[in-house]
Amino acid sequence: MTIAVDLMGGDRAPDEIAKGSFRAAHDLDIEIKLVGQEDVLAKQFKRRGRRNGRVSAIEAAEIVGMSDAPTAAWRAKKDSSISVGLELVRTGEAQAFVSAGNSGAIAAVSLFTLGMMPATERPAIATLYTTLDGHVAIMLDLGANVDCRPSLLAEFGQLGSEFMTKVFQVPSPRVALVNIGEEKNKGTKLVRDAYELLEKTQLNFIGNAEGFDIPKGKADVFIMDGFTGNVVLKLAEGLADSIFTSIKHSLRQSLAARISQLLWGPALRSTLTHWDYSRIGGAPLLGVQGTVVMAHGRSDAKDIENAIGLAVRMVREGWSSSPDPAKLGADPAHLNA
Amino acid sequence: MTIAVDLMGGDRAPDEIAKGSFRAAHDLDIEIKLVGQEDVLAKQFKRRGRRNGRVSAIEAAEIVGMSDAPTAAWRAKKDSSISVGLELVRTGEAQAFVSAGNSGAIAAVSLFTLGMMPATERPAIATLYTTLDGHVAIMLDLGANVDCRPSLLAEFGQLGSEFMTKVFQVPSPRVALVNIGEEKNKGTKLVRDAYELLEKTQLNFIGNAEGFDIPKGKADVFIMDGFTGNVVLKLAEGLADSIFTSIKHSLRQSLAARISQLLWGPALRSTLTHWDYSRIGGAPLLGVQGTVVMAHGRSDAKDIENAIGLAVRMVREGWSSSPDPAKLGADPAHLNA
Repeated sequence: MTIAVDLMGGDRAPDEIAKGSFRAAHDLDIEIKLVGQEDVLAKQFKRRGRRNGRVSAIEAAEIVGMSDAPTAAWRAKKDSSISVGLELVRTGEAQAFVSAGNSGAIAAVSLFTLGMMPATERPAIATLYTTLDGHVAIMLDLGANVDCRPSLLAEFGQLGSEFMTKVFQVPSPRVALVNIGEEKNKGTKLVRDAYELLEKTQLNFIGNAEGFDIPKGKADVFIMDGFTGNVVLKLAEGLADSIFTSIKHSLRQSLAARISQLLWGPALRSTLTHWDYSRIGGAPLLGVQGTVVMAHGRSDAKDIENAIGLAVRMVREGWSSSPDPAKLGADPAHLNA
Repeated sequence: MTIAVDLMGGDRAPDEIAKGSFRAAHDLDIEIKLVGQEDVLAKQFKRRGRRNGRVSAIEAAEIVGMSDAPTAAWRAKKDSSISVGLELVRTGEAQAFVSAGNSGAIAAVSLFTLGMMPATERPAIATLYTTLDGHVAIMLDLGANVDCRPSLLAEFGQLGSEFMTKVFQVPSPRVALVNIGEEKNKGTKLVRDAYELLEKTQLNFIGNAEGFDIPKGKADVFIMDGFTGNVVLKLAEGLADSIFTSIKHSLRQSLAARISQLLWGPALRSTLTHWDYSRIGGAPLLGVQGTVVMAHGRSDAKDIENAIGLAVRMVREGWSSSPDPAKLGADPAHLNA
């Protein structure tokens, strides 16, 4: 298996990206194609060696910046590390693409390069996390689609459900619509209409979920428009960060607390890890014909390795092959309602 | 000062409501009018006595349930504890109303009983919390308005700003619009249009804030439509709950961890309290002509006392008198854009 990795994207590129990629090639026993500028590649390979040839270099002259508009990144930078990496997936030279770069650009270039899965209208960014009761859940969309129609929310439910079944072997994933109350008549017109559509699908739709149900894990798939999802994801990250910052601060306030930290250290670290949303391994881009995983912009080597690990799992479980539209549930025609 | 308190609303009514009310009357040196059914009142007064006459009983025959529709609660239950309590505010027999009951019903009955402030279109539910850097911030709307127009988001900014200035003496509150990126062109059509309107006001509008900025405290006032706000609030509560549950669990996993908990106890409790969003003291209902504070449905006596404390502060700082429309910033006419 070969995974293409964007060497140029992310706050800590290229060092942490290269480090994570070399580690993943070794630990996961896969081939990695590192995509980046010639001199940057040369420096990384000089420093890290070629480790039995598992990591190879693919040149791409341009870089997509964080402020580049998604479609401009596609039109004006045909030789960017994102475009070149995704082209490797299209031609089959790599089975997946991983990048910590501009997520809007990755989504747009993926859409144009790989095309959409059958009966699927738009790509969606998802994230995986571990709930309080210990199961893996997925939530989407996290920002690829900010102004959504009801049919798109139903599509997110289908993509998320298919993902959990195929990649995490959950037999009949519970799908919930994020809303402000349990009752069917609650919320905006968008979610009320999406509820009606979701009821008509063959999904295991369990109704509405509220904000607190997301960390607690009432469902396996949580559906949101991309605006709500993006705010929710960043709030969750920021709040968890803030709580841990103040816990660490309180552990430094007295001698007793310092001793306490020593005693509690391992359990504390395991709790921290559990709630660190970035650790599950990046955000899969669903709906496009191929396996694409976005890593967090702040990713370090460990995060990159995790994102590559998720991509490997998706490929092994057959995600990159298109799901069967018939299995997606309802008549695809109603999705254009 | 006299505060009317709904004895019948909330998961832990009437006991915890009465307990919190009697305590608040004593600790805050105020009068409380407890509003509820005759026999329930009689039982509470028999148990708790009258404490120097600071707490008095006001009878209301009906109860608004959590599943009652807001306007039905107004039309069909004229003698509910919510209607009677708000009528006391309208007539001036009480200066504020506090309830842990059905928030939609409280908002609707407040609107019909007290009317709106000048140049204000809709009531908004707000919440106050302490940010990581230790300042008090307000966010709104939390669910009174799920399908919003841009003008309503601008109005939330004006209400929140006025509240922070008047009640918390913040001279020029920083107002931020919750969005999925910092740039002006990010987000849904709703927030892009609201951004344009907010720029034209005389508010100290600092632009967009992202999810992580809410706990970190980039602004004093965070504006959201009521759908996003409700999801965000419940996610924040649920995530903080979940993190603390897993921390407490990890503190019980080994003898070392148990000793650690003893040593760290006080600092841990202070950290827990800091992040417990319910502790600031209830959610003020802004936009209506009068002081109304909603307590969380799960409120215990301490929460009720805090909510009453917030109502007292609002009254003392002159919130219940209508804000001067001229000071609210822009030409009110454009709010109907």
